Amino acid sequence: MATNLPIDGGRLWSSIMAMAAIGPGIAGGSNRQTLTEADGEGRRMLSQWCDALGLRLSVDRVGNMAFLREGADPSLPPVAFGSHLDTQPTGGKFDGVLGVLAGLEVMRALADAGVVTKAPLLLINWTNEEGARFSPPMMGSGVAMGLFDEAEILAKTDPAGAVFGEALARIGWRGEAEPSLLQRIGAYLELHIEQGPYLEAEGADVGVVTGASAQAWFEVTVTGAEAHGGNGMAQRRDALVAASQMIVAVEGIAHEMGGNGTVGRITVSPDSRNVVPGRTWFTVDLRHARAAALAAMEAALRARIGAIAAARGVAATVTRFWSFPETPFDQALVARVRQAAIVRGYSWRDMPTGIGHDAVYVARRVPTAMIFCPCHGGLSHNEAESITEAWAEAGCKVLADAVIAAAGVV
Amino acid sequence: MATNLPIDGGRLWSSIMAMAAIGPGIAGGSNRQTLTEADGEGRRMLSQWCDALGLRLSVDRVGNMAFLREGADPSLPPVAFGSHLDTQPTGGKFDGVLGVLAGLEVMRALADAGVVTKAPLLLINWTNEEGARFSPPMMGSGVAMGLFDEAEILAKTDPAGAVFGEALARIGWRGEAEPSLLQRIGAYLELHIEQGPYLEAEGADVGVVTGASAQAWFEVTVTGAEAHGGNGMAQRRDALVAASQMIVAVEGIAHEMGGNGTVGRITVSPDSRNVVPGRTWFTVDLRHARAAALAAMEAALRARIGAIAAARGVAATVTRFWSFPETPFDQALVARVRQAAIVRGYSWRDMPTGIGHDAVYVARRVPTAMIFCPCHGGLSHNEAESITEAWAEAGCKVLADAVIAAAGVV
Repeated sequence: MATNLPIDGGRLWSSIMAMAAIGPGIAGGSNRQTLTEADGEGRRMLSQWCDALGLRLSVDRVGNMAFLREGADPSLPPVAFGSHLDTQPTGGKFDGVLGVLAGLEVMRALADAGVVTKAPLLLINWTNEEGARFSPPMMGSGVAMGLFDEAEILAKTDPAGAVFGEALARIGWRGEAEPSLLQRIGAYLELHIEQGPYLEAEGADVGVVTGASAQAWFEVTVTGAEAHGGNGMAQRRDALVAASQMIVAVEGIAHEMGGNGTVGRITVSPDSRNVVPGRTWFTVDLRHARAAALAAMEAALRARIGAIAAARGVAATVTRFWSFPETPFDQALVARVRQAAIVRGYSWRDMPTGIGHDAVYVARRVPTAMIFCPCHGGLSHNEAESITEAWAEAGCKVLADAVIAAAGVV
Repeated sequence: MATNLPIDGGRLWSSIMAMAAIGPGIAGGSNRQTLTEADGEGRRMLSQWCDALGLRLSVDRVGNMAFLREGADPSLPPVAFGSHLDTQPTGGKFDGVLGVLAGLEVMRALADAGVVTKAPLLLINWTNEEGARFSPPMMGSGVAMGLFDEAEILAKTDPAGAVFGEALARIGWRGEAEPSLLQRIGAYLELHIEQGPYLEAEGADVGVVTGASAQAWFEVTVTGAEAHGGNGMAQRRDALVAASQMIVAVEGIAHEMGGNGTVGRITVSPDSRNVVPGRTWFTVDLRHARAAALAAMEAALRARIGAIAAARGVAATVTRFWSFPETPFDQALVARVRQAAIVRGYSWRDMPTGIGHDAVYVARRVPTAMIFCPCHGGLSHNEAESITEAWAEAGCKVLADAVIAAAGVV
């Protein structure tokens, strides 16, 4: 075992800052949206760094980049790791970038130490994780894992009408490799910032991600009766007060059942200061690490909304809008991450991810685990997103150890 | 006393239906917006009806129409009554129209019975009560009572750019009388549909309106922290859940204090399905018949919003946006209305109006009372607005008796 692999936290930090200089934001963060010139330039810099290590690059037809480091036994499937270099329009310097450049640091440290792994290693930069310019998100990993149709993805357009496949070719990163070959990797590990406040708040250095939460999104329409605001209270059927009680109930369900519940959008009709709303529409986003618990949350949602509606004399409809199954990560690989944190002496906690990542799509086909790095205040998708060099180094060391444990050393 | 004045409910109903044929709506109601050709035509029909009774018409510079019936004692100030003929774009057949044409029916019944009152009588059709085409509402009564500047009102424009004064002249109803002369009337009585559900629900025939509620309108901004919907619940500062509790509190305050509380508008930011709202903005409309009680409602609003914000770790600001003082009606005149309902044997209830009416402006200068007529389901500002012929007749009889009591008979 190589748990003393000399990871260089300062070098990792320098790489991150060098990448952030490409496609800088307007407030200290990054604007390196997918398939822009900045994305092309960031990819070239990564490629040059990997060239210097003698890694062999393969680019597939949707632009996923995979850098191969040979192992002692070419018959073994590669152990892969990475994340994404693209950012939100007003994104941070670490979201995605940390995982790719920590992977690069692992490759550099292995080279420095002269370590040869049994299985080959593969550093991956997935195309368009963010989905900010071209929707949906996680396109590259989705196509590679066979979850999205390649032709459909290549034909996607951005708001300005640019076509995904053409934009990819224009920046020089439309390759020829078959994306689905990435389904043949033996394991996948991804280090990513938490994008939540929990690790920092608990003083934990490392999050051991056990899987992705199941999600179910709903739309709720409450229909009461419009009335003039000058009318008394006794006979009102106020669609907004009813909806307000329902929104409070969503929070309660999430607390009671240990999941997440969010109402992110709401509209009222007729939307006039002195008219009791006759109709209210709102969204509900429910998440839970276990599908059965999510189903129980949905049942509670429907029951409580129905009860509130009945008590207030309004009608309510709850429509499932979208859902996403739970995605447990590979228990053995998760155990390697946990073990690495323990051996390195870091404080850590198990946690699910409620947020989509390339690893969540990869986990549908390949044994997968993720490592979370704390970030200040949970702030992400924001130029002010920030982490410490020590946190980045801790995450990178755990990634390195888990990769080496999975790949084996000669 | 002439409490047996032979009011003809069928004739009143026919007049209302004849008026509704001018500027018909698209769903059985009316679209006779102020200063349109239809408004001009409706005014002409009223004028012809009044001509046939020998009433003398005076039109002031903002288009208010006043039809005079001489009294035995010309030194007495006239007893006035009426309402408005203009409607919402998708208005009903009764809102305003009932009061004008019930006034006409009183004039007709007095002529039929050969009754001569001591004080002169004045039937008024106020210009632009609705405020739908030209804002603000209650323009004609507002100018007459000196609450609005005449020149400013004449220069108001509609959304198409038409100027109020020019539109008034175009339909032929820009008169030369001094609007403020209407401040010299001795009393004002207005019959109007309730535009609320209470009379119908209680089976009351007549509402005795004791005054107009004081109003105070607020804007509330709640600032929490945006967070990804995939993040857990523990450390959220959700601006929408906090606002939802505040909206429920507004309802509670109104119930507890016997006033009205309405939240009619709400917006969230960033308004995304999977993002915990970092900011919520909503409006609050508080009303109470007594100004001191409204002040107590405001104090409770501020206290409860502050307490909810503190408990949830969010910030909240409450800004007074607009306010309107309470307007008590004239107790002696209100007593005449109540007495008329009792003598006629109608079921009645005292109630404030939370809704603006010409009578509310007139009451600032002149002893005033209002009579409410039930309407089905409280529905108004809607083509489906409806009343029964019996309700209309009851309101008209109470109006007639109160007018006669106020004016005296020879």
